[in-house]
Amino acid sequence: MIKTRITEMLGIDHPVVQGGMQWVGRAELAAAVSNAGGLGILTALTQPTPEALGKEIARCRDMTDKPFAVNLTILPTIKPVPYEEYAQAIVDSDVKTVETAGRNPEPFLPLFKSAGIKVIHKCTSIRHSLKAERIGCDAVSVDGFECAGHPGEDDVTNLILLPLAAQRLKIPFIASGGLGDGRGLAAALALGADGINMGTRFMVTEEAPIHEKVKRAMVDASELDTALIYRSLNNTARVFKNSIAEQVLQIESQPGATKFEDIQPLVQGAKGKELFEEGDLDRGIWSAGMVVGLINDIPSCAELVQRIVADAEEIINERLAKVVQA
Amino acid sequence: MIKTRITEMLGIDHPVVQGGMQWVGRAELAAAVSNAGGLGILTALTQPTPEALGKEIARCRDMTDKPFAVNLTILPTIKPVPYEEYAQAIVDSDVKTVETAGRNPEPFLPLFKSAGIKVIHKCTSIRHSLKAERIGCDAVSVDGFECAGHPGEDDVTNLILLPLAAQRLKIPFIASGGLGDGRGLAAALALGADGINMGTRFMVTEEAPIHEKVKRAMVDASELDTALIYRSLNNTARVFKNSIAEQVLQIESQPGATKFEDIQPLVQGAKGKELFEEGDLDRGIWSAGMVVGLINDIPSCAELVQRIVADAEEIINERLAKVVQA
Repeated sequence: MIKTRITEMLGIDHPVVQGGMQWVGRAELAAAVSNAGGLGILTALTQPTPEALGKEIARCRDMTDKPFAVNLTILPTIKPVPYEEYAQAIVDSDVKTVETAGRNPEPFLPLFKSAGIKVIHKCTSIRHSLKAERIGCDAVSVDGFECAGHPGEDDVTNLILLPLAAQRLKIPFIASGGLGDGRGLAAALALGADGINMGTRFMVTEEAPIHEKVKRAMVDASELDTALIYRSLNNTARVFKNSIAEQVLQIESQPGATKFEDIQPLVQGAKGKELFEEGDLDRGIWSAGMVVGLINDIPSCAELVQRIVADAEEIINERLAKVVQA
Repeated sequence: MIKTRITEMLGIDHPVVQGGMQWVGRAELAAAVSNAGGLGILTALTQPTPEALGKEIARCRDMTDKPFAVNLTILPTIKPVPYEEYAQAIVDSDVKTVETAGRNPEPFLPLFKSAGIKVIHKCTSIRHSLKAERIGCDAVSVDGFECAGHPGEDDVTNLILLPLAAQRLKIPFIASGGLGDGRGLAAALALGADGINMGTRFMVTEEAPIHEKVKRAMVDASELDTALIYRSLNNTARVFKNSIAEQVLQIESQPGATKFEDIQPLVQGAKGKELFEEGDLDRGIWSAGMVVGLINDIPSCAELVQRIVADAEEIINERLAKVVQA
């Protein structure tokens, strides 16, 4: 067993948190991760309405007795999203932990805190992590350059961000980005983190509700098979380097400012929803972290979590204990 | 004491290797690192001629009884460099370890191996690491995206490269890039490395033969103060983000192919030599890794190495031992 401030705060067996992933964070995966002793996460906006989120939370609760969380990602959208109603649905469903992301969660904190909910905020920089601590978040998830989705524009890796967080933060923090095995868990703990967040690695499990072809493509991928797109729009995203991602990069490399209208036709099939359900790998784009290069199989969540924890324990108890000599 | 395959192979007390740095890898620094129980490294091409290198090796030997190494970096240059003669000078001086970098070291291996010299090759990718193993190198130094100088064009970080190296390499490997403290050493060992290589961190020590102003600028810098220049020339270099680096980035961001002639006038004062000796921070450019964000003081090499090893030991013996519960 590996026990940290995060396992204690969240009431979970292992310091392993599932990443909040649009279209992927459904009851099947969240319940499987929680049943494995980690923290499963439903993504609020995967559900079309706050009511649907309430039902998904109830469905997840039918599938596990263990704690799970809900991710609320606040991003600028073309169509307005009723974030307050989603937040209220979370509170009404008696969820104990929320992961916020995308923007300063301050407006939502009074609601969550008054309901006794623990708030973990996802940050891609030290300045945002310190701010999250200052406004009263209970923990932060520190997202390095390696991560899937939006790493920010600073390009600072977790080898640097995590020790900085350890130097400066008082609240517990979770390492996110680049982590997928026992070596990574042991290293994150050594760097000062209280646990790890894994998105990409949990996409490639039996229970992840995405098409087998997508999982297989990620098993076959190497560490060179992710791409940073939307950099020219100042909204960088790390995605799987399929043919669509390569076309986007091509458009972005043209002289002059990139027009989103030029990219939109390519990625509009990019609602992971259809891609993930139908398994057409070149239908759109999907987020994938650099850790795809370390993924070689499609285990169950239980197998995966047990293996990672056992490997980290062995590294700590055997390998590291052995190199340190009196 | 931390003992690994690298301390054993190189006959050093601590698994801490100084990075090979042009203009900085002189006898003062190399001897200080070796006297501290790490592996100091002279850089061959810092010396104007093979004869001068022989003299520098002799000078270093006067300053330490401990093992030290010589770095031989093979890069395309405008003026031809007599690499073979430098290599012969290394052999003639009875140096026991060579670090090669910049290009496939195969042509030099028969000379070095027949002299009983251990060869560590610096690689920025797994494919090059595997090739180095195949051609007979004794160890590799795995250089992540975080590193100062040339990280290659793949942008793969050490959180990914090191576990991959651990999975695939049989020979010992040293983690290079992003490392500057005890947390980093403990994490590198957890990820499977046999030691760490630090360039930037050793630049900011009492004994580094560079102007105090340069060291002070690096203490004051944050994790955001490095820049990747020369990307448009397919020869990316991570440097300290001073005004010259910013001007280079500006030129590279212009539409159309970057012409080296446009950059050259800016960086031609960029012989670290003058910059490092005179402390004019905007005279040219100098390599600096992302780890500048973790550097807060200018200790002696002995203090630094002792602190890093003691901190790593404490992390392994106390923090990590405590989180693992039966």
